[in-house]
Parts: sequence; C-alpha cells; structure tokens
Amino acid sequence: MKKIAVILSGCGVFDGAEIHEATLTMLAIKKAGCDYRIFAPDREQADVMNHLTGKPARESRNVLVEAARIARGKAESLTEFKADEYDALIMPGGFGAAKNLCDFASKGADFAVIPELEKALKRMNELGKPIGALCISPVILAKVFKGCEVTVGAKGGESAIIEQIGSTHVEKSHAELAIDRKYKLVTTPCYMLDADIVQIAEGADNLVKAVIDLCV
Amino acid sequence: MKKIAVILSGCGVFDGAEIHEATLTMLAIKKAGCDYRIFAPDREQADVMNHLTGKPARESRNVLVEAARIARGKAESLTEFKADEYDALIMPGGFGAAKNLCDFASKGADFAVIPELEKALKRMNELGKPIGALCISPVILAKVFKGCEVTVGAKGGESAIIEQIGSTHVEKSHAELAIDRKYKLVTTPCYMLDADIVQIAEGADNLVKAVIDLCV
Repeated sequence: MKKIAVILSGCGVFDGAEIHEATLTMLAIKKAGCDYRIFAPDREQADVMNHLTGKPARESRNVLVEAARIARGKAESLTEFKADEYDALIMPGGFGAAKNLCDFASKGADFAVIPELEKALKRMNELGKPIGALCISPVILAKVFKGCEVTVGAKGGESAIIEQIGSTHVEKSHAELAIDRKYKLVTTPCYMLDADIVQIAEGADNLVKAVIDLCV
Repeated sequence: MKKIAVILSGCGVFDGAEIHEATLTMLAIKKAGCDYRIFAPDREQADVMNHLTGKPARESRNVLVEAARIARGKAESLTEFKADEYDALIMPGGFGAAKNLCDFASKGADFAVIPELEKALKRMNELGKPIGALCISPVILAKVFKGCEVTVGAKGGESAIIEQIGSTHVEKSHAELAIDRKYKLVTTPCYMLDADIVQIAEGADNLVKAVIDLCV
C-alpha cells in the first residue's frame, strides 16, 4: 500500500489549507487504495482571517494546530517528515500555501519557501518520488525546482511570476493536469479557477491517480 | 434544482462541525444536481479545542465565523433561515452538533436544542420537508421529534439517551441509513463508528440521495 504525505498549511481557504481541496485529496488517496499521513509546519500563521467578513482578525493561531482540525487530530510537524518513509507528497492549496508554506502572498516573485518544506521537497525529488500540488501551491514547486512546468489554471499574475522565476506555466482547465515528467510533478488548478466542489473532487482524483502512476 | 440548507456547528470535529462530513455532504448535494446554502448559529462556541493535543484551549470563537471556513465565506446566520425557500435540511456531525447546536455534550438526556435550530426543524417538518442528520446530530432529531426513529450507529451511551427521551434507536453500520417516513428523517452513523473517509463519503452520498427522494 503506497503511503502519501499530505502537507497542510492550516484550516480555511483565506489563511490556511483550502478545506475542500484537503478533504478531497485525502478521500482520493483512500479511494485509490493508498494511505496518507498529514504534516504541517509547527509555526504561527502569517495571519488569521475572519472567513465571514473576509477581514483580518486580531488573533494568532498555529498552522499545525489548525491543520489538525482537518486531520481529526492526527497531524505531525513537518520537521518530523522523513522522505524515505513515503512514496509521494501532495500539497493542497488555499491562501495558507502562499502565506504559511512560503511568503508568496506578501513578497511576490521574491518569495522564499520555508526551509522544512524546501528540504522535504528536494529530498523527495532526490529519491525520484513524485510530488502533487493543487491550486496556488504549484508556485512553491516553480521556485524549488526552477525550470519545471506547472499550472495554476489561467494566465494571470501568478502565472507571470512562475515564468519570471524561471519555470514554465501551462494553461489548464478544471480537473486537467500539468505533468512534468522530469521532476515528477503533477499540478491542477482547483479553486484557482472559479470552480464548484464537484470540479475540485475531479481535480483531486485525477491528480492523485497521476501521482500514483509516477511512483516507482 | 432542489435547494438544501446545510447546518454547520463550527469547523473541526472536537468543537465544531466534522470537516469531512460537512465537505462530503456538500459534494454529495452538488453531485446529485442540487444546490446548497450554509447556515450556522451566530453564537460563541461552547469551547475551543486544540485538535492536536485534544485539550481545551483558552480561546473563544464564533460558530458562524468558523463555519464560514468550510463554506469558503458563504455562510448565513441560522436566524435568517426561511424554511419555505428550501426543499430539505441536513446537519453534518462533529462534537459541535452536541455542544453548539444543543447542550447534549454537557447535559446528557436533559439537553435543550438552541431555539433557532428547533424552530427551523419544526417548520421544515410542518411543511412536509425532509431532514437529514449525520453522526451525533440525530440526537437533536430524537429530542425535537419525540417518538421518531434514528440511528447513531451502534448501541451505547448515546443510543440509550435517545431511547430515554422517548425516541427509537436502530443499529446501523457504515453508510447504512435509518429512515423515518412519518417525520421524513434520514440518519446515518458516519464517524460515530470507527470509520475511514471513504465510508464517510458513502454515508453522505446515501443520505443525500434518500433525503432528495423524500422531497415533495
């Protein structure tokens, strides 16, 4: 049974992991007969957003503690991740990917990926293991694996930055995949496009199947 | 296109709505060609639980504001709910159903349902519209519709209280349904049993289909 590490960035689209993308990735993994474990950085969130008003809240929350909501308590610090124990790694999206896994949301093209995630991604790649990324999280792959090919859906500010930092953006529609066979990267737009939850489920299913196909 | 109101009790299994049950109910509704809107009580949560440690946190959060995380911002106060605008109502589970939608978690058999939810449920019933409940939330139906038949899965403390307050508990396994045709109630155990996320998806699919079949 293949084991897949799922990296979450909190709990909630505006400051953490997008809940539908995370849940439907976990469902797709189990439906495919594989198992998952959840990891998240043990760090303060970049911010806390009131999801009803869309405005910042004067609160602080921890990324790992909030990710444990989606994981039903079973989440581990990303510093504990060991690449040799997993067959693949997948990152759902949400603003948390751009705020807590890196600082893309505030820095644009000059963003940096948090060291524990960069280490995990590079180690998986060294071992020839595939990586999947949904929604906005492909920007992280574009930074760590310069020259790779990913999608965040349509052309726009994010795709322009992907090109600016030396990677290639390919346009894709709902549930379509960009597959970079050299780096073994699979990406799909999900909520980067105006999508409904059925399209997210299809995107997660397609991405998980393609990631599993790339496993050694 | 049938419109279904989904009632959430926060965001996270230990103090709010169970995230997988909520997400997979929303997915099942859309897959069935129906639409949903999300409602939650505009109240402080009974408590906030650290989902990593399983211990209470010294924080306060609002049920509606947290439910908006699952709803991607589109959630409304339960006091705004109008039964004549919906074909059916569904309540996912999680401890939030037993803490924020009623005080079953702290009071046991003597619990009370929050007035805005009791009013919504009774009005749906008066209009002959079906109600679905997953996981622990069938206890709310057992209280509001005394003499009804529901399931929370296996026999145990919760099923004993359902019998004690004058309703009937029927044992059901993964993704099985209890259907009370008199009151038009559909219930399924979900995470009241030791379940994986694929079984939750099956339970949500089955429940949503049965609820739609009961629509007038």
